[in-house]
Amino acid sequence: MSASPKKEENKSSLGRVTRTIVDAIGEAIVTGQYPPEELVPSEAELAAQHGSSRSVLREAIKVLNAKGLVTARPRRGTSVTEPSEWNLFDPDVLRWILRSDFSLSLLLEFTEVRLGFEPGAAELAAKRGSPAELAAIERSFDAMVAAGSDDDALLVADIAFHIAILDASGNRFYRRLKPLVTTALRFSIGLTNEVAKDYEGSAEAHRQLLQAICRHDARGSRRASERLLLDTRAVILKAPQPAQ
Amino acid sequence: MSASPKKEENKSSLGRVTRTIVDAIGEAIVTGQYPPEELVPSEAELAAQHGSSRSVLREAIKVLNAKGLVTARPRRGTSVTEPSEWNLFDPDVLRWILRSDFSLSLLLEFTEVRLGFEPGAAELAAKRGSPAELAAIERSFDAMVAAGSDDDALLVADIAFHIAILDASGNRFYRRLKPLVTTALRFSIGLTNEVAKDYEGSAEAHRQLLQAICRHDARGSRRASERLLLDTRAVILKAPQPAQ
Repeated sequence: MSASPKKEENKSSLGRVTRTIVDAIGEAIVTGQYPPEELVPSEAELAAQHGSSRSVLREAIKVLNAKGLVTARPRRGTSVTEPSEWNLFDPDVLRWILRSDFSLSLLLEFTEVRLGFEPGAAELAAKRGSPAELAAIERSFDAMVAAGSDDDALLVADIAFHIAILDASGNRFYRRLKPLVTTALRFSIGLTNEVAKDYEGSAEAHRQLLQAICRHDARGSRRASERLLLDTRAVILKAPQPAQ
Repeated sequence: MSASPKKEENKSSLGRVTRTIVDAIGEAIVTGQYPPEELVPSEAELAAQHGSSRSVLREAIKVLNAKGLVTARPRRGTSVTEPSEWNLFDPDVLRWILRSDFSLSLLLEFTEVRLGFEPGAAELAAKRGSPAELAAIERSFDAMVAAGSDDDALLVADIAFHIAILDASGNRFYRRLKPLVTTALRFSIGLTNEVAKDYEGSAEAHRQLLQAICRHDARGSRRASERLLLDTRAVILKAPQPAQ
C-alpha cells in the first residue's frame, strides 16, 4: 500500500551512517541540547564524538541545513536557527519534535491545520475521486474494522484511511501532505486511542465520512471530516499534559 | 518586514554556482527535458556541460534529491522521480513548475489548498492574534491601498498581508507555509491583477477580512477569507488557458 510509513522513511538516499548522525544531531537541536542562535560543535569535534569521518559530518550538516535547523556562517561556524525556521513539513523534523516534551501542544496545532485542509480534501474526494480511489478509502476502513483492538493494525489502517482521502482529492498539494500526515498521525492516533479508548465511536465517525464521500456528497463529506477532527481535538485536550 | 520574498530565497547556504546548476537541472526536469523514470546524464557529463567541477555537481544532485526530483540508485545512476514525488512545498520546485506551461492548473490547485487553510488561519488570527500581529496585517493593508496601480508595490503588500495573517494564527504549521505562499502568490497575484484589473474590488475584499480579524470576529474572518479566495478562483478560471 502506498501509505506505508516505512516507504516514506526509506526514500532518502542518505547512507545509514549519515542518517544516524543526522538523527542524533537533529534530536539534540530539537530538545535544546544545542540551543537556538548558538554554535554547534565543529565538524571535527562532532566527527570525533560520533566516531565518523569529517566528510560524513559535512553531509549531515548540509541535510540539517536543508531542514532549516542550522545555518552555516562563513568563518564563524554552524549555528542553530530559531525554532520558527525549523521545517515542520519535513517528517524528520516533525518526528524529532513530537518525541520531545512539547508533543501535546504541537499535536493540537497539527489538529488545527488538519481542520483546515482535511475537510477540503474530503470535499474534493467526494467531487472527483475515481472509483479506484474511493475503493482505496473503503479498503482502509474495512481494515480498521478488522483490526478491532489490535492497536498496531488499527494505526496502520487509520493512517491509510486519511492518506487515501488526500490521494482521492486529486490535488497535488494535498497529496504532498502525505509524509507529514503519516508522521503526525502515528503520534496523534496512538495518543487518542490511549486516552479515549473509544474504538466504536471512532469507527462510526470514519464510517460516516466514508459514506459521504462514496455518495459524492461534498458538503456532507466536509462536515463529517470536521466532526471527526473536532472529536480528535477534544480527546487531545483531555490528555494529561506532560511536564514542560 | 519579515515577509520579504528576498529573505526566503537567500536563506540557503548553497554556493552561487551550485544554486545556478540546481536551478538549471531542476527546470530541465520540471519541463520534461529529463523525463520521469529516465536517467539524468552522469555527473561527469553534467559537470562538462555546466563547466563546473564534479564535486559541485555531486552537491547539486543531493539538493535535487532532497527536493524529491531525483533518486540516486547505486551502480545505476541518478534517475528522475515521478512528478507525484516532487516536493511542491519546496519553494524552488514550485517556482520551476509555475514557470512552466502548467501554471494555470497548478494555481487552481494552490487556490483550493488556500481555501483549505487560509480561512482557518484567519479564524485563529481573530481569536488569538496579538495587537502587534494585527497591526502588521493593518500595515500591509495600508501599503496595498498606498500602492494604487503600482503593480510591484501592490504585489509586495498583498503577499505581506496574507503572510501577516499566517503569522497572527500563532500556529507553527501555518507559519511554516509562508515560503510556499510567498512563492505561489507572486505568480497568482500577478495573474489575477492582470486578468481582473479590479483593484478596488480586491482592496474591499481585503479590507473586510482585516476588519473582521481586528474586531476578533472568528466566523466573520473565516467567511471573509473564503469570499476573497472564491473571488481569486473565479478570476483564475477566467484567465486565458495557456497551450499545454
